[in-house]
Amino acid sequence: MKLTPKGQATRRRIVDGAAEYLRGTEPGAVTLDDVLAVTRTSKGQMFHYFPGGKEELLLAVAQEEADRVLIDQEPHLSDLGTWEAWTAWRDSVVARYHAQGRSCPLAALMDQVSSTPGAAEVVTELLRQWRARIEAGVVTMQDAGRISADLDAARVASAFVAGIQGGVQVLRATGSTDQLEAVLDLLIDYLRKA
Amino acid sequence: MKLTPKGQATRRRIVDGAAEYLRGTEPGAVTLDDVLAVTRTSKGQMFHYFPGGKEELLLAVAQEEADRVLIDQEPHLSDLGTWEAWTAWRDSVVARYHAQGRSCPLAALMDQVSSTPGAAEVVTELLRQWRARIEAGVVTMQDAGRISADLDAARVASAFVAGIQGGVQVLRATGSTDQLEAVLDLLIDYLRKA
Repeated sequence: MKLTPKGQATRRRIVDGAAEYLRGTEPGAVTLDDVLAVTRTSKGQMFHYFPGGKEELLLAVAQEEADRVLIDQEPHLSDLGTWEAWTAWRDSVVARYHAQGRSCPLAALMDQVSSTPGAAEVVTELLRQWRARIEAGVVTMQDAGRISADLDAARVASAFVAGIQGGVQVLRATGSTDQLEAVLDLLIDYLRKA
Repeated sequence: MKLTPKGQATRRRIVDGAAEYLRGTEPGAVTLDDVLAVTRTSKGQMFHYFPGGKEELLLAVAQEEADRVLIDQEPHLSDLGTWEAWTAWRDSVVARYHAQGRSCPLAALMDQVSSTPGAAEVVTELLRQWRARIEAGVVTMQDAGRISADLDAARVASAFVAGIQGGVQVLRATGSTDQLEAVLDLLIDYLRKA
């Protein structure tokens, strides 16, 4: 669906409002009527922008949460050209997930839309972009001679993404960021020694 | 409940049968009657061993799946005293999760019992034991002078657990073991250089 600028703004207002509301409650318990009330949207408007109803709206919110994962790591994630930047990025990742704690808006949404077409791509694309930005950082450091050119930047980036995912998963299970910090510190230490 | 040896054997037969059945289907779609039929258990017997019904049975199966996660990594995981053992362990972890692919019996069960008392402890305890065994391996290598004594073995073990969790999570999302392999290889390479 091609939207006018005004239509895009309205759609964005609905998604933003729904995202904020869903962050404070269990997505599984939320009805479309709740979202209509919170975002002050009429049913007709909602189905104009989200013909697929609740599932399509939740998927749009999941996409926004996925975008936010990367945005929250900026400006560091796109600028990993010095060791200071790597440390600042590491701290921003830990702070983000520390603040989030056991709850993970994106995971809660994915549980709801797991069988919706396009849902898997939201996560796959997030992981792909995340990896690409870390890889770009490693390459920048290699070009500057700060990391050995022998390292496979793509593989290093994959290890970081896996480590962060796992650290967050452990955080959600145990409430502690220890593992997330351990894996980030070890991998950065690995880069420093390479 | 204190069980006689015969009672323990019966309980085990039910859990094993249910575990095998649940590996081939969606736990959410399974009824207690299905499990009774598959395990040839009477309703009276089932409630004798699992007074809490389906939830208690699923939790027992989750515990068995959690135990299996560690058992599948043996004999390597408890014997990480040489680099060959670390490589063999790494290969066994990758092979296990490669065979499992996108499905994860433990995660599927945890989705079902997430609000059951004791469910969180199944995962927390699994992660704790996993970390402890890796830590013991690092300490053994340090005692043998193969890894620098300066490394914090507990922290290294935490990084491995986080890395594996994340690698498996990415595998479940994308179907690829690349990230799991990348993070294991990097962390082992880190140990070799330390």
